[in-house]
Amino acid sequence: MRTGIATVCLSGTLREKMQACAVAGFDGIEIFEQDLVTSPLSPEDVRKLAADLGLTLDLYQPFRDFDSVPEDLLAANLRRADAKFRLMSRLGMDTMLLCSNVGTATIDDDELRAAQLSRLAALAGDHGVKVAYEALAWGKYVNDYEHAHRLVDMVDHPNLGTCLDSFHILSRDWDTAPIEAFNPEKIFFVQVADAPKLSMDVLSWSRHYRVFPGEGQFELAKFMGHVVRAGYAGPVSLEVFNDVFRQSDVERTAVDAMRSLIWLEEQSARWLEANPAPAAGKASGASARRRYPMELATLPRVAEPAGFNFAEVRAGDTAGLETLLGQLGFAFNGRHRTKDVQLWTMGHARVIINEEPAPFGTATPAGGGPAAGTGQPAPAAPAISALGFDVDSPVIAAARAQQLKAPAVPRKSQANEEVFQGFAAPDSTEIFLCQGSPDGTAAWVGEFGEPYESGEELPLAAPDAGPVPGAGAGAGAVIDHVNLAQPWQHFDEAVLFYTSALALEPQPYAEVASPTGLVRSQVMLTEDRGVRLVLNLAPLLQQEAADGTKEPGAAGSGHRRTYQEHVAFAVDDLVATARAARDRGLDFLQIPANYYEDLDARFALDPEFLATLRELNLLYDRDADGEFLHFYTATVGSVFFEMVERRGAYDGYGAPNAPVRHAVQYDHLHQLTRTS
Amino acid sequence: MRTGIATVCLSGTLREKMQACAVAGFDGIEIFEQDLVTSPLSPEDVRKLAADLGLTLDLYQPFRDFDSVPEDLLAANLRRADAKFRLMSRLGMDTMLLCSNVGTATIDDDELRAAQLSRLAALAGDHGVKVAYEALAWGKYVNDYEHAHRLVDMVDHPNLGTCLDSFHILSRDWDTAPIEAFNPEKIFFVQVADAPKLSMDVLSWSRHYRVFPGEGQFELAKFMGHVVRAGYAGPVSLEVFNDVFRQSDVERTAVDAMRSLIWLEEQSARWLEANPAPAAGKASGASARRRYPMELATLPRVAEPAGFNFAEVRAGDTAGLETLLGQLGFAFNGRHRTKDVQLWTMGHARVIINEEPAPFGTATPAGGGPAAGTGQPAPAAPAISALGFDVDSPVIAAARAQQLKAPAVPRKSQANEEVFQGFAAPDSTEIFLCQGSPDGTAAWVGEFGEPYESGEELPLAAPDAGPVPGAGAGAGAVIDHVNLAQPWQHFDEAVLFYTSALALEPQPYAEVASPTGLVRSQVMLTEDRGVRLVLNLAPLLQQEAADGTKEPGAAGSGHRRTYQEHVAFAVDDLVATARAARDRGLDFLQIPANYYEDLDARFALDPEFLATLRELNLLYDRDADGEFLHFYTATVGSVFFEMVERRGAYDGYGAPNAPVRHAVQYDHLHQLTRTS
Repeated sequence: MRTGIATVCLSGTLREKMQACAVAGFDGIEIFEQDLVTSPLSPEDVRKLAADLGLTLDLYQPFRDFDSVPEDLLAANLRRADAKFRLMSRLGMDTMLLCSNVGTATIDDDELRAAQLSRLAALAGDHGVKVAYEALAWGKYVNDYEHAHRLVDMVDHPNLGTCLDSFHILSRDWDTAPIEAFNPEKIFFVQVADAPKLSMDVLSWSRHYRVFPGEGQFELAKFMGHVVRAGYAGPVSLEVFNDVFRQSDVERTAVDAMRSLIWLEEQSARWLEANPAPAAGKASGASARRRYPMELATLPRVAEPAGFNFAEVRAGDTAGLETLLGQLGFAFNGRHRTKDVQLWTMGHARVIINEEPAPFGTATPAGGGPAAGTGQPAPAAPAISALGFDVDSPVIAAARAQQLKAPAVPRKSQANEEVFQGFAAPDSTEIFLCQGSPDGTAAWVGEFGEPYESGEELPLAAPDAGPVPGAGAGAGAVIDHVNLAQPWQHFDEAVLFYTSALALEPQPYAEVASPTGLVRSQVMLTEDRGVRLVLNLAPLLQQEAADGTKEPGAAGSGHRRTYQEHVAFAVDDLVATARAARDRGLDFLQIPANYYEDLDARFALDPEFLATLRELNLLYDRDADGEFLHFYTATVGSVFFEMVERRGAYDGYGAPNAPVRHAVQYDHLHQLTRTS
Repeated sequence: MRTGIATVCLSGTLREKMQACAVAGFDGIEIFEQDLVTSPLSPEDVRKLAADLGLTLDLYQPFRDFDSVPEDLLAANLRRADAKFRLMSRLGMDTMLLCSNVGTATIDDDELRAAQLSRLAALAGDHGVKVAYEALAWGKYVNDYEHAHRLVDMVDHPNLGTCLDSFHILSRDWDTAPIEAFNPEKIFFVQVADAPKLSMDVLSWSRHYRVFPGEGQFELAKFMGHVVRAGYAGPVSLEVFNDVFRQSDVERTAVDAMRSLIWLEEQSARWLEANPAPAAGKASGASARRRYPMELATLPRVAEPAGFNFAEVRAGDTAGLETLLGQLGFAFNGRHRTKDVQLWTMGHARVIINEEPAPFGTATPAGGGPAAGTGQPAPAAPAISALGFDVDSPVIAAARAQQLKAPAVPRKSQANEEVFQGFAAPDSTEIFLCQGSPDGTAAWVGEFGEPYESGEELPLAAPDAGPVPGAGAGAGAVIDHVNLAQPWQHFDEAVLFYTSALALEPQPYAEVASPTGLVRSQVMLTEDRGVRLVLNLAPLLQQEAADGTKEPGAAGSGHRRTYQEHVAFAVDDLVATARAARDRGLDFLQIPANYYEDLDARFALDPEFLATLRELNLLYDRDADGEFLHFYTATVGSVFFEMVERRGAYDGYGAPNAPVRHAVQYDHLHQLTRTS
């Protein structure tokens, strides 16, 4: 598949955009007219720069408001087109995008339109260029891609074809199957964009909220499948108008864009595989058309991860973390034999405390996983730095991630130590792919437990300090979910990253109120719920405030903000776990009395049960499928923990309780600020 | 008018919200349930805090999903209501908001609904409280305020009335006139919210985009006029769900909110004055009902300003500014007799360069106008710090602004010097109200021209250096418009501020592309175009970058970001002005050659004229009403200048050229960064 991208998707100058596209590995680009008009580069400069960068210039766009006009206006439009065709010759470009008329169309007559398009096609022919006619979703008379294609057929000129833009087609819910019957020689160009399903006017939706494939909700693989079956083999080019991408780092956005096309290519191949062309198709034989002119590259396939292998918190000052984990009932499993790293476990839930310095010269200063590098010292305040996932084959999964342009993270390991495949998520969290085991154990645990060479004092709950009280309640414990804060400018990128590289499925997002604004909460799941990852988009001012107070070199400086994040562990008996934790002196997040009154008003709970909830600062939710009990710890650095118990088939996260957590955490933070 | 506000409008904890409401001067508040549930304050604490702050607790809200349900669900709902009524007694509150059912309604039967509402009203009566029933715009069966009112009439119980919410009524375009016929005793509550006209689903519109009155496009004065004529005299309370306000500083937002109600009260009084009640109204006599139960306070009326009196730029290092102004053709009019301030003029366009230190202890460190205080030294880099407006009566206009809670700015002046009435705009620009004169002159100019005591060298174009070459071309020059950058969290506040305090009219906003994202451009006008103010909302990352690089104590630290801003001057002959400026060596913003090719393609300009545009780096636009020529200077600090010529009745600002300016300025800034 030939990949392309319109310069309007990216921030910066035309030169910066072109360089970023080349670095990200695109085959070609669309020149968005305004980017050229505002550039000091001459058309000849642009042509040479593209050649030097190995980029083809695939589409000049857009040419607007041409058809369905009176004759005098048509003459002016042809004059305007002539100027642009001459410009295209200087650029060495051969295809121009023509949008169906929005602003100046006054005559609704297909015969007239075809005649006018025919004159444009003839003029284009004189200049040796082609015109790709596209039905805008809000075109005045032509807003349906089949209508545009009928007009192209009526004109029947070699220099006029159509451009198929997934947004204009899927935003209107047009059926995409008829594409297959199109003459592929008349499909001059294909543009792809995804979008979240929004109920708003289609023009605003298109201009502000398009996203890259895999970041929205359109059925793009199906769209592409029809395009491939039609026999189209030209560029598949991104045209994504997005307020955030326009502001984001150009090189990074270009990589995000490229990742979306690599993923779309694979998904399209899979769709074709799952939906064989009907035997009565336009091909003569039943076995014909198995190979299409467009070749689709595929990626190594991976199953979705079975679960979390570990969660890692990086910290210079580990005392608070050790205390919290010990009080929750985690057992200290010792230090790593060669690294400054501790292991704490409860059932199959494993938490690593990493005191290693950050690796040198990486874009991801958040930590190094169990196999950390060397560099800056760990920041004092704890922060979630890495997550391990159980996968069938770490090597294959890592190869897939790498082909999806996930940046690998450097790590060191010594002989006889398990080597983790790791890469950096958009928020700088390190993602490690680990060999899962059917019984939920992890082989690398054996690397822990030997006395650490530094001779430091062992922490509170060292294994030789005897059995941890109440640990039995946590025998079945696992990591239930992890909640990561996302910087606003990389949220969509994160969704695509986890979708494509880790096979997690995004769910419809929720919004919860906090004292500093609405928090957007995006759940990413595996089908069997073995992995639940929650991406939180914090309010802007909260991100700014966090940014303002972060210490240099802290986890996520540069990317992640020090907004609060957490790891949640599921246990079988939350009340017992909470009681034991309370007996060990745990600092629970204190829930207001008003909450329990409201809970009672809503759910009419058994008074004894309500008293238990209140006594232990437990939160409660219920839906048609089951019940959810949970509690939170106080925050250390930017990290806190949650313990949950799922009863029945409850599949949520206690969203109605989230405002309570946010408010209490906010209040606590303010009290700290006031007293310090 | 009794003023109120729902706690959901504001950020922070319940205590912080209540304190901010009291400081802003509200009479009462609505308690949003979630704010109470998440608060550590007991109901009794809240009651006492409100009493201490002088706030009445006017409405407990919301109670949802009550009516139109089967009997078993109704029983649960009554139990839930009973708990909330008991809670209200502890809070000392007497009115609860009941929203029409969205989620659980299954029976569409007004008889049944009335019977269910009747049971709720009886229960409320037992507790001595009242229920105000509101039709949500997206209610399943009840989504029309007249329908809700009919149900209230059917029930006919003293403890059931209706709540009128302007958003739910105006978002659906319901006619508001029928409100006048309502029995005022059945209107238990009135909530007001404004909103921009958006084409999206009404639920999302309501939850994210409501704004305070005067910040949107609803006809709220008319709505309120009908409410007043109905005879309602209860609280008029803001219920504004807005993503930005939820994140903004609570005290500041509360003042913005209060300003909106003061303004709405005045606008409502004016609407009533302009729309006398029909003689055949519900009152018996033609002269009756002139006085309504609700008393509406009014403000001193002011005419819209006639024009800009001056623009002030504050700078420690003034050399670059002096050079630019001299090259543009401005004459140096000397220094102020007692302040470290220069005056430059061209025709009636006056620019003040202020080198005075900032006033002490103010929230507006941006400068001190011609009457500056003492304090921090001026920042080295020039920034727009103040604007003077010609008004009929500065004292009355200032009194109006003060009653609209505009913060006054401190200034010092000496005997025989004109005293300016000044206050601070939301972006920290200082606004001075000056006595306009019919001939466009300003009396205070006489305070300039004497040699400044410090004995510094006079700048380049001092008056005794002879006539400025080419100054004749600028004899008719005036300030055409001023373009100010707005921080994202105060944009709506700025619109209301200039609307209410300065009688400027907001126009529909435009969005223009820049290399770092879309810039929202909001024009505020007087009817005769004597004042044109353009508020630019820069992309977030641009604001962050500016913020990151600003120097401590710089203009706008704390509020304004150092995004580029400018003053535009209108002249009669732009080509002559540009030629003279070029001959004096002006550093023009360099316009790319591609721009002129595109211009030619679009407008088919006379080749000689096009050559002139190209030669002088002039930009051009044309519409049905006329033509627009303009050019920009290079930027000094965060300030640049524009010279414009309006031909015919052209009323715009060359918006199609704005992306060119942004791109060239961006490129220039990056070149500076690369070479420094």
